[in-house]
This record gives sequence, structure tokens and C-alpha cells, in this order.
Amino acid sequence: MKVQVVKAILASNDEVAQENRAAFDANGILALNVMASPGAGKTSLILATSQRLPAHLRPAVIEGDLASSIDADTLAAHHIPVVQINTGGNCHLDAPMIRSAMPHLPLADIELLMVENVGNLVCPANFALGTHLSIVVASVPEGHDKPYKYPGMFSAVDAVVLNKADLKEVFEFDLDFFRRGIEMLKPSMPLFEVSCRTGAGLDAWVHWLATQYQPVAPAAASVAQ
Amino acid sequence: MKVQVVKAILASNDEVAQENRAAFDANGILALNVMASPGAGKTSLILATSQRLPAHLRPAVIEGDLASSIDADTLAAHHIPVVQINTGGNCHLDAPMIRSAMPHLPLADIELLMVENVGNLVCPANFALGTHLSIVVASVPEGHDKPYKYPGMFSAVDAVVLNKADLKEVFEFDLDFFRRGIEMLKPSMPLFEVSCRTGAGLDAWVHWLATQYQPVAPAAASVAQ
Repeated sequence: MKVQVVKAILASNDEVAQENRAAFDANGILALNVMASPGAGKTSLILATSQRLPAHLRPAVIEGDLASSIDADTLAAHHIPVVQINTGGNCHLDAPMIRSAMPHLPLADIELLMVENVGNLVCPANFALGTHLSIVVASVPEGHDKPYKYPGMFSAVDAVVLNKADLKEVFEFDLDFFRRGIEMLKPSMPLFEVSCRTGAGLDAWVHWLATQYQPVAPAAASVAQ
Repeated sequence: MKVQVVKAILASNDEVAQENRAAFDANGILALNVMASPGAGKTSLILATSQRLPAHLRPAVIEGDLASSIDADTLAAHHIPVVQINTGGNCHLDAPMIRSAMPHLPLADIELLMVENVGNLVCPANFALGTHLSIVVASVPEGHDKPYKYPGMFSAVDAVVLNKADLKEVFEFDLDFFRRGIEMLKPSMPLFEVSCRTGAGLDAWVHWLATQYQPVAPAAASVAQ
């Protein structure tokens, strides 16, 4: 019984995710699911990315948190269109939450939608949102063993961004060990070392992200992947 | 239907948690549920605590991870009795997992059982394990806003341990803001600032933990709270 109910919930979520994808595509929007542990730097990366995008990629953000609007307030202060979703205790965003947020976004005036998921290295990886790409933001203080301990997350994403990379020495972070853990799961995984604090590495990440965007006529049906 | 199933799962978990509690009490064991984000320093705190306990508190550990035995290997190398639970993707420990681990521990020869939960600031707070106390290990690099964003976890625990406190300046960590977020949820919450790297603050934490232990004759039915 339990398993059947869970399967039904996931199937229903997947249907809504497909509808979300169709809506993104119809509006020529590339949508990115940003996942991470609490405090890895998702909001900082989204903000730094927004400030470095080429002019033809206008950003907007959906912020997912259990409670509070701290991150949405940060982004709004920088004039980035943002909608806050409070999950009320739920450990992940799901596709219906994204659907409910979309009418509050200027879909015709953006090309890149970044969705900041709830801070959690487990559950968010199991729920499709309809986004074209997903990334995990790891951070140096969390330690170099995370790909080995959270393989579901690190194998579910399209790229890994390692934030707070300026502190590798302070935390005795073994980058080779970290990289091997990722390559065991997905040998060709793009890995970007960045520091949102110093700005190091951000240009390479933003360049890669921008190349994932393929402009289409609004009536066409597919964007990127 | 969905809600009923979830309630049934939680009720069943609570029954097993009560059985676990009875088993801890019958063996004169104080059991502690250690929760945190990935990489906050749960294993480091458990190791540092074990090395500072008074002689009458002999420790053992149950390690919960989605995958790998990295943390259990670390503790075993320090001659601490440890059992690894791999949840196989599950985002939290539950009471039946603890029950299944207990036969592999030297229950008659320990007084303190530390349970390291899966790294996750959401789901573990919803599942009783039968432990007497629970704590959350926060860490400075995660940021001072965590009590506001994860109120379920920070209100569910008996104490907060703030690790990596030697790095408050590097991360511009606002301790007053962090403390206010906790006090909004639970005004009397004990808060311990520690650095497992330097050893600072650990004595006060271990002293508090030791005072929670109330020795009982093995036949008696209650320990601590």
C-alpha cells in the first residue's frame, strides 16, 4: 500500500513537471533546478550568476524554503524578479509548487529561471520540477566526502558547482578525492570551482550555463536538452 | 488516503521508538540523537565528545548514512564501538533501523549511545528513535539564518551545538542574530559554541551532556528525562 501511494504521488508529480516544461519551452525559458545542503551558497550563487549573465539572458528566481523570505528579500533588493514558496515543513519543492509560482513571474520578459530548492542533499533529487537542467552546489566546509555519502544527489545532476573554494586550505579539502567521488557516479560531470565571496571561478560557470541556452521562437516546442 | 498512510507509518515508528527507549533504560544507557546538515561536523563532535567523557560514561555510536561507511571507519579507528546503518537512499533514520542495530552493540558495557542521523535539517526531526535527548549541530559556514529557515529542526531539539565557531569572523557570522532565531523558538535552549578543530568550547558541552546522565539500577525504568 505504502509503495503504491508513493508511486502514484511521483507519477502525478511527473505529469505536472511535463506541463511546467512545456510552459518554459513555450516562453523560450531555460529553467535550472539549484540544489544543495543548507548554507552551501545557493542564494549567493544565484545572485552572483544573475549579475554576470549576458544581456540576452534575463533572470528570474523561484525561492523554496520551509519558512521565511530571507533569500527572496536578498534577491529582490538586487531587482531580480523573485517568487518565494514556503513549503510549510515539506523537505523539497515539487512540480505543483512550481506551477503555482509561475503566474507570478514575468515569463515573457525572462530567458533564465533559477529555482532554488529547499536546502537538502537527499529528497529534492527525487522530485522532477520540469526544469531543463539541475545542479548541486557543494561547498568546501561541508567536506570532500559528500559525493560518496549522497550519491543519489550527485548522480542526479547535470553539473556540480563547488563553492567557498577559496577556503580549501583552511578546511584541508582534498579536491582529488572529491572529484573521484563524482567521476565514479558520472565520469563526464562538469565541475566548477567558485567563490561567491571573491568572485573566483564564476565566469567559467556562467559561460557554461549560457551555452546551455538555445534561443527558440516562442511557438517552438523545445529548449536546450 | 495519503495522509492516513503517513499517519500509520509515524504511529508504527513511535511504537518501536518506545520499545527502543525501554531497552536503553533497562541497560542504563542515555541515548542521544545527533542531527545536522551534511558536513556540519556530527562525526567530529561525536569523536571529540567520546574522547572527553568522564570514565563512568562509556560511549558507543550508531552511524546513519545513505551510503558508505566513511564515518563509522573513522570512529572504529579510535576504538569506539560503532554500528553503521546504510539507509539506501532514505533521508532519515527511523526507530526500526535503531532496533535492528542494537543487537550489534555491547549494551551492557556502555552508558552513552550517540546516534548520528542522516545529514538533513528537515526529515530526521519528524521521526522519533527512542533516544532521550536530541541535538542539532549547526556550523558557522552554513550561516546565521538557519534557525529562521529550519524552525522544525531547531524547535525539536534539546540543545544546539554551534561548530566551527573559530571561523565566525571569516564568515561574518552574526551570533546575536543566530541566538535570537533560536530563542524565538525555545527561549531556554542551551547553546554551545565549539570548535572540534581547536577543541574550544568542548568541555562545557561535554559537562552539560554528562549532567543529563542519571545512573539507575539496570532493573529501573527511567534514565534522564
